[in-house]
Parts: sequence; structure tokens; C-alpha cells
Amino acid sequence: MKNPSHFIKDIIVTPIAITDPPLLNCVGVHAPYALRIILQVETEGGVVGVSEIPGNKETEEAILKIKDSLIGLDVFQPNKILQKVAEKLPKTEDNRGGTPWDQRIVVHIFSAMEVACLDILGKELNCRVADLLGGTMREQIPFAAYLFYKFKGAGGVWGYDLDPQAEGWAAARQAEAISTEGIIAQAEAMCQEFGYKSIKLKGGFFPPDKEVPDTLAIYKAFDGQMPMRYDPNAIWSLETGIKWAKEFKGKLEYLEDPVRGQENMSKLRREVDIPLATNMCTTSFSDLPGSMKVHSEDIILSDHHFWGGLRSTMELYKICKTFGRGFSMHSNSHLGISLAAMAHIGAALPIFDHEFDTHYPWQSEDVIVGGKIKIEEGCVTLPSGPGLGVEIDPDALEKLHQNYLACGLTKRDDEAEMQKLDPNWKVVNTRY
Amino acid sequence: MKNPSHFIKDIIVTPIAITDPPLLNCVGVHAPYALRIILQVETEGGVVGVSEIPGNKETEEAILKIKDSLIGLDVFQPNKILQKVAEKLPKTEDNRGGTPWDQRIVVHIFSAMEVACLDILGKELNCRVADLLGGTMREQIPFAAYLFYKFKGAGGVWGYDLDPQAEGWAAARQAEAISTEGIIAQAEAMCQEFGYKSIKLKGGFFPPDKEVPDTLAIYKAFDGQMPMRYDPNAIWSLETGIKWAKEFKGKLEYLEDPVRGQENMSKLRREVDIPLATNMCTTSFSDLPGSMKVHSEDIILSDHHFWGGLRSTMELYKICKTFGRGFSMHSNSHLGISLAAMAHIGAALPIFDHEFDTHYPWQSEDVIVGGKIKIEEGCVTLPSGPGLGVEIDPDALEKLHQNYLACGLTKRDDEAEMQKLDPNWKVVNTRY
Repeated sequence: MKNPSHFIKDIIVTPIAITDPPLLNCVGVHAPYALRIILQVETEGGVVGVSEIPGNKETEEAILKIKDSLIGLDVFQPNKILQKVAEKLPKTEDNRGGTPWDQRIVVHIFSAMEVACLDILGKELNCRVADLLGGTMREQIPFAAYLFYKFKGAGGVWGYDLDPQAEGWAAARQAEAISTEGIIAQAEAMCQEFGYKSIKLKGGFFPPDKEVPDTLAIYKAFDGQMPMRYDPNAIWSLETGIKWAKEFKGKLEYLEDPVRGQENMSKLRREVDIPLATNMCTTSFSDLPGSMKVHSEDIILSDHHFWGGLRSTMELYKICKTFGRGFSMHSNSHLGISLAAMAHIGAALPIFDHEFDTHYPWQSEDVIVGGKIKIEEGCVTLPSGPGLGVEIDPDALEKLHQNYLACGLTKRDDEAEMQKLDPNWKVVNTRY
Repeated sequence: MKNPSHFIKDIIVTPIAITDPPLLNCVGVHAPYALRIILQVETEGGVVGVSEIPGNKETEEAILKIKDSLIGLDVFQPNKILQKVAEKLPKTEDNRGGTPWDQRIVVHIFSAMEVACLDILGKELNCRVADLLGGTMREQIPFAAYLFYKFKGAGGVWGYDLDPQAEGWAAARQAEAISTEGIIAQAEAMCQEFGYKSIKLKGGFFPPDKEVPDTLAIYKAFDGQMPMRYDPNAIWSLETGIKWAKEFKGKLEYLEDPVRGQENMSKLRREVDIPLATNMCTTSFSDLPGSMKVHSEDIILSDHHFWGGLRSTMELYKICKTFGRGFSMHSNSHLGISLAAMAHIGAALPIFDHEFDTHYPWQSEDVIVGGKIKIEEGCVTLPSGPGLGVEIDPDALEKLHQNYLACGLTKRDDEAEMQKLDPNWKVVNTRY
């Protein structure tokens, strides 16, 4: 059934930089720009599929290095394309690194190629990507509010260009959120604006004796009616984790990565009566046997950029259901292409467990036609068009590419950004 | 992306009976007819998708009972169709039964509907079912020779109508194979005819002190060059299994289901140095956590009729790869639609581990246009047409349906057939 019009003619790789607010986390603070790579895969038939992955000079160079070997492959044979990617690149599957975000080049490129191919397939077949993942089970895909401690500023350049006219979420987005009142105000503004039905607080920056009471204060501010998640990104020792996790009993939907590694997660899990989630100790298929052996978590937060694409994410979902794990999606700073891809996963899941994470409201820009995708009543409406249902706006892409060239960043480095403010800051695996 | 031409207009359910030779196994002997159910799912657009599942009056009645609730559903949304099937039928997922074949109605109907939908999708999209499973990695799909102890006769009616002119495989197919020489002759004729590159002997009928030496005699007859599998269908006690499995060290590709249940398989596995396979102790997604906990087998033999369809089978494959299990496919007496479906699985697997089982050469009839699919050099060539690549021959289907009406069988019952020859015969879980 080979159809030459489905063969890959060109792959356009565009690194971009998007303005990002000074959000705090266990390794430091977000730089003024977050990096992404936009892929446009064009077939001989002139159909273009798009995808978006975390930006990193090494990832960009790796794609450019193997690009020629992918030209001529059939987008209707995605497994052959992934096989070729794997052949051409050194295997880095297990080199997950210690940061909350991922650094594995092969899975990122798998994801970039697979999502773009699925986008093309959908366009060729006049169906949506969710249909290619087993069918569209729902049109509204729920996401969670994603709170951050943050310095003042909405991103762009250090110095925090502020809009004095801002109100509501626009004001909260640029406001400092360090105090308990500040983070509650952020939660209220975000939920007001987007109608979220659950809340996650990214922690790991401040000591637990501030962050745990803050989390409980947010819980209380919503009268205990809002499912809450809290994520210190594995910065706690096991002792610290056991001590503080107990404070959350009956009050958290889940506690995400309180401690580092499957063994520690498992030990903590046996000590406390609260569901644990992870996007740090179980982040690849090779981590799953260990996870099942020690029961390191109750919920796995997938990320199609980390797990190698949308079909892999659906396979992970099936494994979660088979082994009694809950399933949700993790997020890093991203634009509308990644959000649309996540929405297709959310639409295709036979059972939807937990609202997905998304940084999307923290971003002010996008590369897609029509500007930013709306989040209403906490949900993204699945795009109605074929494939992913989003198209690239070439002017917006060029502008963000120019940002990339101008900003000088080549990888995410929250430690270096934090050191500009505190020269003594150091990333450590276990801070508290 | 709803397209009314993709909505299900009708589902035609045709029970058929195919002549079957008197093959022996742990529960008795194959009846003169094996039962199958052929499904034809027709869309409003006039496209027909086909599938084949094990025959059983209860399964047929269950499909007819829920048929009306499936009319109008979209074949591009297979998960919604399976959800509807599950809603309408009592959950029998865990009711696997003790026989080597399956009896679970829900997974059979899942498989019937899902394969027919994929066939339609392929036809609508002008691609092959393997392409819908991630891509066609190979065109030649290897199968293994499947030897049986058997009485004289090629099937049809009791009395064993024989063709005195038969030669080669046709002669071996109707010959008795009880003696060591008889089973070796069967192996040689089968391998000669179909070019198989590996051999499986179905055992479990005779005591191990006959079957184990016979297996080793076949191994020796092929100069130890042919990968061998032997399957006593869990009829051995653990002690018997440990004793006899040791005889196979270094000589079997794998030993299939020597003992009953995951715990016993795990205990035996720790005692002997030989790969174990199963299609009896790990036969559903709900069995997988136990399998991984006790490591009950090294290779899982899937069966898309048992596991709920082709996409589920690919998910099982991914789980096998994730947890370090080998993967192959189990078989019962079947026709060309099931063989084609298995070939699409074999074509789509990123890594092909072990030649699949098939009873196909034991059958003389088929329902597909063009008659029986060829097996050459041990391989089935993936059909080149869209979807499954096979079409139903209405005359052949009608003839086999008339066989069904005439033969009076309503379910597989090898015990009852055996009792016609030996009134004292009884199915037991552990015979030796």
C-alpha cells in the first residue's frame, strides 16, 4: 500500500524561545525564555505535519544530523521511522538526568517524528489524531490549575516588564507569589480565569515547613472542595518526606515525587496513607518493571515528549490500567502544538483518571494560527480539524525563532538563572 | 469528523462448522467439526469488514443479543464500540475456564468487532491493518509446524473418510500418529510441505514417559537443528513437571504450560533451566500483575481472540517487551480470516521473537475468496489488499454454515468426543 505522496520530503527544524515568567522550582528559577523546537514534516504530497518538543541545542543538532536518513520514509509506517531514529542515534533511553524535566534526546525525537506523522495521517485520512489512538471518547479534556511560587514579572527579560493596567489573571500572572497570601491569590485568579476543577502547586523551592502549610492553606481557601496536588520534585529526604506527607492525609488528591527514586518512593508509600504520583522515578518503559516490583507510586504522570510519542503514551496508559496505576500527564512550559497533542491523548483515553498538568496559561505567545487555545471550565475542547487540528502561523514562528537567536540560551538551566540572583545557589538532589 | 457512511448498518453473524481431524490433547480429541463464527460488519457506506472467532452457541447468542445496540456506532471509534459491548454483557473477563481453549464471551466479541472495524478502516483508508497497528515491518510472517498425536482420519465425520491416493502432507494429515515413528513422519511431511523452520508438538494426552522421549526423538530426527516446542497443556503435577522438564535442557526453544497456574509455573521455572511459555496461566490483562510478580513464564503466547483484538495484542506485545517477556501467538482450529489477522500482528511487531502457532494446515476448507492461504518456507505472505486483505466467498460460507446446522454441535467438547471411544474418559486438571 505504499503511496509515494506519503514519503517524507523535508523536515524543517525551528528552535524557538518563548517568554516565560520567573517560576520557582527545586533547581532554581525559569529563565526569561523557555526553549522549544518546532518540527514541520512535509510529505511528497505536500501535506505538513507538526510537532513541538522541549528545546535544547543538542536535540536540535541530533535531529539535523539524522534528518537526511529520514527523508523518503513513509509517514504511514511510523514504527519504521522510529526504528531508523534509534539506529542513527546513540541509545540514551536511560540517561534521564536528575532534573524535573527530561533530557533524553531519542525519546524527544521519537515524539517529534511520531506526532508529526500522526498529524499527517489524520490530515490524509480526514480524521483526528485521537481517532488514530482508538477513538475520541470525549471532546472536553480537563486540565488542572498549575500554581508556582514566583518572583514578580511575567517573563520576557530580566527586569520584569510589568503591565500596570493588568487585572485578574493577567495581574496574578505577573505578580510575585511567595507569601501564603500571594500563592492563594494566584490560585484564585487562575481558577477564576480558566474554571479549573483541581489545583497543583509546584514546590521544592522553599522548605517544607513553609510549603506544606501553604498547600494546606490553599486547600482551606477552597473550603476543602478542590482536589489538590503538591509536588516538591523529590527534593526531600525520606525522613522529611515521611514526616510532612503525613500532614496531607485525606487532603491531597495526590502527592507528587516527595522523595527521589523508586525505592524511597516505595518506602514512603508504605509509611503514609496518601496517593503518590511521579514524573521523576518512573519515566520510561525500562523503569516500569522496577515500579511494579516495589510499587513506587499510585499514579504515573506521562508526558508524550518523554515517553516517545502519543502511541507510546497510550501503551503506558494500558500498562497503568493493567497494573492498577492511575494515569495523568505531566507538563513543561509549552505552546499550543503540545497542548493539542495532550488533548488528543486525553480525548482517546478509555477512562480519564486525573486532570492533566499544563503550564500553558503561563505562556503569552503561540505559534499556531488563531493564537492561544482557550481553556474554559478547566477544559480544552479537542480541536475539530483533521490531524492535531492546529496549524503553524509562519510569522509567529519566525518571531519566536528570532527570540531564540537573540536570547542566546541553548538549553534549560534554571540553576544558572537562580545564580544571577543568588551566587551561592546550587542544585542538590536532596535539599531538605 | 463523524462520517455517517462509517456508521454500522448491519452485523451478520454466521456460525460455521469446519471439518477437523481427530487431533488429541489433554482433554480428549477434536470433534469431526470445529466451530467458528464469522462476523460481517457492514457500514452505511456499504463497506464490509470481516472477522472470525471461536464458535460457541453462547457466543453467537450474546452477539445477537447486543447486535441492535451496536447498529449506528462509528467504526472509526472502536473503543466506543468495545465500551458498548462491555456495557451490554456481563463481565466474564476472568472466567477463563480450565480448558486449553478459551471460553470468555466478552473478549471474543471484542475481538470480532475490533478486527472487523480495523478491516473496514483499512478499506476506507486504503491501507493494511498492519499499517493501522504501527506499520508493516515485514511482509513474510513465520509460523511453526504444529504436530499432534492423532487417530487415523482427516476429519469430516467419525469413521475417518480416507483418500487412498493421498501422498506427502495429504497422506500424513489423514494418517494415524500415535507411535514415535508416526509423529516423526508427521513432522517430516509437514515441514516438507510448508517449509517450517520450527516445530511444536501438542502433548498432554499420553504420559510423559512417552511424550518426552517422542519430543526428543523428533529433535534428534532433525539433527537438533530445528527449534522445538512441546506443550502438555498443564496436565502435569509440579513434581512430574520438574522431573521431565529437566530432560529438555538445551534442547527446547521453549516448554509450554508444563504445569497449571502461575504459582506452579513459577516454582517449576526456578527449578529448571529452560524457557517456559504459556497460553494458559497468563491469558488476560488481569493476569499480568501476577505473572510479573512471580515470573511465571518467559514467553507469552497471545491470541487476539482471547486478548480482545489486534490492538490489545499489540499492547500485550509492548508489555512483554517492557517486562522482558518473549511474545508469540497461540492458535486453535481456524480459517483464513483468523490467519490473516495473525499475519497482520506478525507484520506489525517491531521485533519478531518466535514463529507463531497455527492449526491452519489441519483444515481443508476456507471461507475466503481464492481458497486457502499459502504457507511457504514456513511463512504467510501478508495479504496485499487493504484491510485484512481477505474477502468472504458467500458460497463457501453458506456451505460451512450448512455443515454447522447439520452437525448438531453447539460448543467445543473434546471430552464428549473422547468418551465415544472410551466411556471411562474424564477431563482432569492434573493427569500425570
